[in-house]
Amino acid sequence: MSSFSFSIEAECPGSWARAGTIHTPHGTIQTPIFMPVGTQATVKSVSPEELREAGAMIILANTYHLMLRPGPQLIQDFGGLHSFMHWDGPILTDSGGFQVFSLGHLRKLSEEGAAFKSHLDGSPHMLTPERVMQIEAQLGADIILPLDICAAFPCTPAVAKEAMERTHRWAERALVAKERYRPEQTLFGIVQGAFEAELRQESAHFTGNLPFPGLSIGGLSVGEPKAIMWEMLRAVTPELPRDKPRHLLGVGSPEDLVISVGLGMDMFDCVLPTRVARHGGLFTHAGRVNIKSARFRTQHGPIEEGCDCYTCRNYSAGYVHHLARTEEQLYYRLGSIHNIRFMLRLAGELRAAIVEGTYCAFRDDFLARYIPTSEKVREDQREKWRAARLHS
Amino acid sequence: MSSFSFSIEAECPGSWARAGTIHTPHGTIQTPIFMPVGTQATVKSVSPEELREAGAMIILANTYHLMLRPGPQLIQDFGGLHSFMHWDGPILTDSGGFQVFSLGHLRKLSEEGAAFKSHLDGSPHMLTPERVMQIEAQLGADIILPLDICAAFPCTPAVAKEAMERTHRWAERALVAKERYRPEQTLFGIVQGAFEAELRQESAHFTGNLPFPGLSIGGLSVGEPKAIMWEMLRAVTPELPRDKPRHLLGVGSPEDLVISVGLGMDMFDCVLPTRVARHGGLFTHAGRVNIKSARFRTQHGPIEEGCDCYTCRNYSAGYVHHLARTEEQLYYRLGSIHNIRFMLRLAGELRAAIVEGTYCAFRDDFLARYIPTSEKVREDQREKWRAARLHS
Repeated sequence: MSSFSFSIEAECPGSWARAGTIHTPHGTIQTPIFMPVGTQATVKSVSPEELREAGAMIILANTYHLMLRPGPQLIQDFGGLHSFMHWDGPILTDSGGFQVFSLGHLRKLSEEGAAFKSHLDGSPHMLTPERVMQIEAQLGADIILPLDICAAFPCTPAVAKEAMERTHRWAERALVAKERYRPEQTLFGIVQGAFEAELRQESAHFTGNLPFPGLSIGGLSVGEPKAIMWEMLRAVTPELPRDKPRHLLGVGSPEDLVISVGLGMDMFDCVLPTRVARHGGLFTHAGRVNIKSARFRTQHGPIEEGCDCYTCRNYSAGYVHHLARTEEQLYYRLGSIHNIRFMLRLAGELRAAIVEGTYCAFRDDFLARYIPTSEKVREDQREKWRAARLHS
Repeated sequence: MSSFSFSIEAECPGSWARAGTIHTPHGTIQTPIFMPVGTQATVKSVSPEELREAGAMIILANTYHLMLRPGPQLIQDFGGLHSFMHWDGPILTDSGGFQVFSLGHLRKLSEEGAAFKSHLDGSPHMLTPERVMQIEAQLGADIILPLDICAAFPCTPAVAKEAMERTHRWAERALVAKERYRPEQTLFGIVQGAFEAELRQESAHFTGNLPFPGLSIGGLSVGEPKAIMWEMLRAVTPELPRDKPRHLLGVGSPEDLVISVGLGMDMFDCVLPTRVARHGGLFTHAGRVNIKSARFRTQHGPIEEGCDCYTCRNYSAGYVHHLARTEEQLYYRLGSIHNIRFMLRLAGELRAAIVEGTYCAFRDDFLARYIPTSEKVREDQREKWRAARLHS
C-alpha cells in the first residue's frame, strides 16, 4: 500500500528527543527536520534548487490556498504538486482547517464540515473530511492531513472538548475517505485538545490508536504564552506511540525548535523563518538581527561568520543591508535562504547531538547564547488571533 | 595603461552590422551584445550566477542611483562594484546625466555641471564632468561614461545645438579628469545632437576624433517615434570611426536590437526586458505575450518551445502563470530570466548570422515573425517624458 516508514536511530537519555528516518515515495527525511512552507506551491522567493542546496528534505504546501487558486483539479492535470512546482522531494499538505478557522466570520462550522467564503472573491466553499481527502489526493503530496478544528486561545474547557471530539469524529471519516482516493498517500492524525492537559492526553490516546502512520500536534502556537505550549507538549508526548513520527504544526522559531525536540517532536513547519526574513529579521546563533540596522552598512563579513548558506558564502552583510534598504527583490531571496538554511542546519545539529548523546548540552548551550525575540512579536501574533476571533 | 581592446571579426556586406570582440580587465565580450541593467548594483530579481547562466557577458549599473545609495565611497571600501555585488564579469557604469536630466525641476544645469536634489531625501548634489569621473573611479567599472546632456524630444535646433556643444566641452574635461583618478578604466565618448541629422554628424566627428576607445550614442529612445531614431542612426553611423565599439544607450526591445545591429550598433542596454517581465510581458519569437492572460492557465509546455532558459527548461507556462497571478516573488525571477536570456540568445543569433553573412535574411525573417508591441507602450513612455519636462 504505502511506501512510508519511520525508524528511530537514537534516543536521548535525558529528554524525549529522538533521531529518526522517514521514507516517503519522494525521498528520505532525517529527523528532527524543519519543513519550509510553500503556501502557494512556492516557498516565497526561493527556487526548488535553492531549497535543495539549503538542505530542505521536505516542504509543506497549504491546501486552503491551492484549492482556491489555481484549484486542485488543475494541479492534478499538471501531474500533481511535485510536477507543477518542480520539486521532486517529499511534500506534506495541511488540511486547510487552520486557515478556514482563521477566516472568522467568513466560515461556519457544522458536524458535516466547514462552510466558508473565499478570502479572494467571496465565493462559497465547503470543506468536509471527505472533500479534504479528495483535494489532497488531487494535490498528490506524500503526507496529508485530515480536516480538524483548531480552538482559539483562550477558550473554555467545553469549547475545547467539543472541538476535540469533532476532530476525532472527522479523523475517522478521513481515514475511511482516504482509501477511496489515493491509498498510497500517508495520512497523519491530528492531536487537538486546546490548552487542557487532560484533553490533550485523551486526544493523544484516541488519535494514536487509529491507523495513522504519523501524528501532527495541532492547535498550539496560536497566540498562547510559550509556557502553556511547553506544558501541553509535556502532557501529550508520553501518551503518544513511540514508533510514529510527531509533527508540531506551525512551529516555529529557532529556540522553539531546540526546545520542542527535547519534548519529543520530530517535524516542524512554520512561515516564520521566511516571513521575518522578508522584514529584515535574520537568524544568528546570538539571536535574530535586523539587517536593515545601520550597523550592517559597513560590515564586510557575512551575516554570520561560519554560516555555510549561499548568501553568507557569496555576499557581505553590507551588500545584503544595501539590498534590504533599497527593497531589491534579491534581498528577499538572500534573506530567506539564510534563514531556511539556519533552520535546517540547526535541525541537523540537533540530530547529530541526539545521535552523539549530547542533546541536552547542545540545547542548554544554544539557549544560553541565543537571545530570543522579545515577547512583543508574540503579542502581535496573539493580537491578530484575537482580531480574527472578534469577527466570528 | 588600459587592457581594453576591440576587434572586428566579420562585417555584413548588405548592412552596417559587424561582429566583434571586446577585451576588458574582467573578461571578454562578443558583440553584438545586450547588457542587462543592474540599477542599484543588482539586476532586479536575478542573481549573478543566473545572469552568467543566461549568457550575460557585461552588465550596466547606474551611477546616479549608486552615488546616492549606498554611496561611491562605501562601494570603494568594499573593493568596488564587482566585489560589492558579487559579479566578476565586465561592468559599464553610465554617468548619471540621463537620470539627473529626468529629474526636471529638481535639477539646474550650468557650464560647471548639473546641480540637483536627490529623489530620495531632497539633499543637494552637484555633478560635474570631473566629479563623475571620480565617482565612477570609486565604483570601479571596466567601462565608464562621461557626463553629458540629453536633450528632450521634441526640442528646438538651438536647444539641441547648445546641449551638444556643452556635451563636447564636458567630454574634453572628462578625458582630462579621468587620468587623475583611474587611468586603467575605459572611458567611452557620448554622441549627442538630439534629432538633427547635421548635429548628430557633427557630434560623431567631434567625439569620434577624441581619444575615446568606444562611443555611446545618447539621447535616443527618449520618446521619439522609432522612425526618427532610425533616421538619426542612419545619419550618424557612417561618420563614426570603424574601429571603436558603438553602444546605443537605453535600447531596447528585441526588434530594436535586430534593427540597430544593421545600423552599425554593437552594444545595447535597457531595463525594458526586466521591467516588462515584472509586469507579465514575456518575449517569444512571435512577439511579447502576457503570461497573466487566461490562455496560459492550462499550458503544460514552456513559455516558448525551444527556449533554453532556466525558466523554460524547468517550469510550465501554466505554473509561471500561477506565480504571476498570485504575485509570488519567484515569478519576477523566472520572468526576468526568460527575457534576459531571450535578449542574449538573440544577440548571439545576430552575431552568428553576421559571421555567416546572413544577417539581412535573419533580420527580415525575425521582423516578419515578431509582432512588435503596439505604439501604446511608446506613447506611455513619451507621456512620462513630457510630464518630467513640465516640471522643469
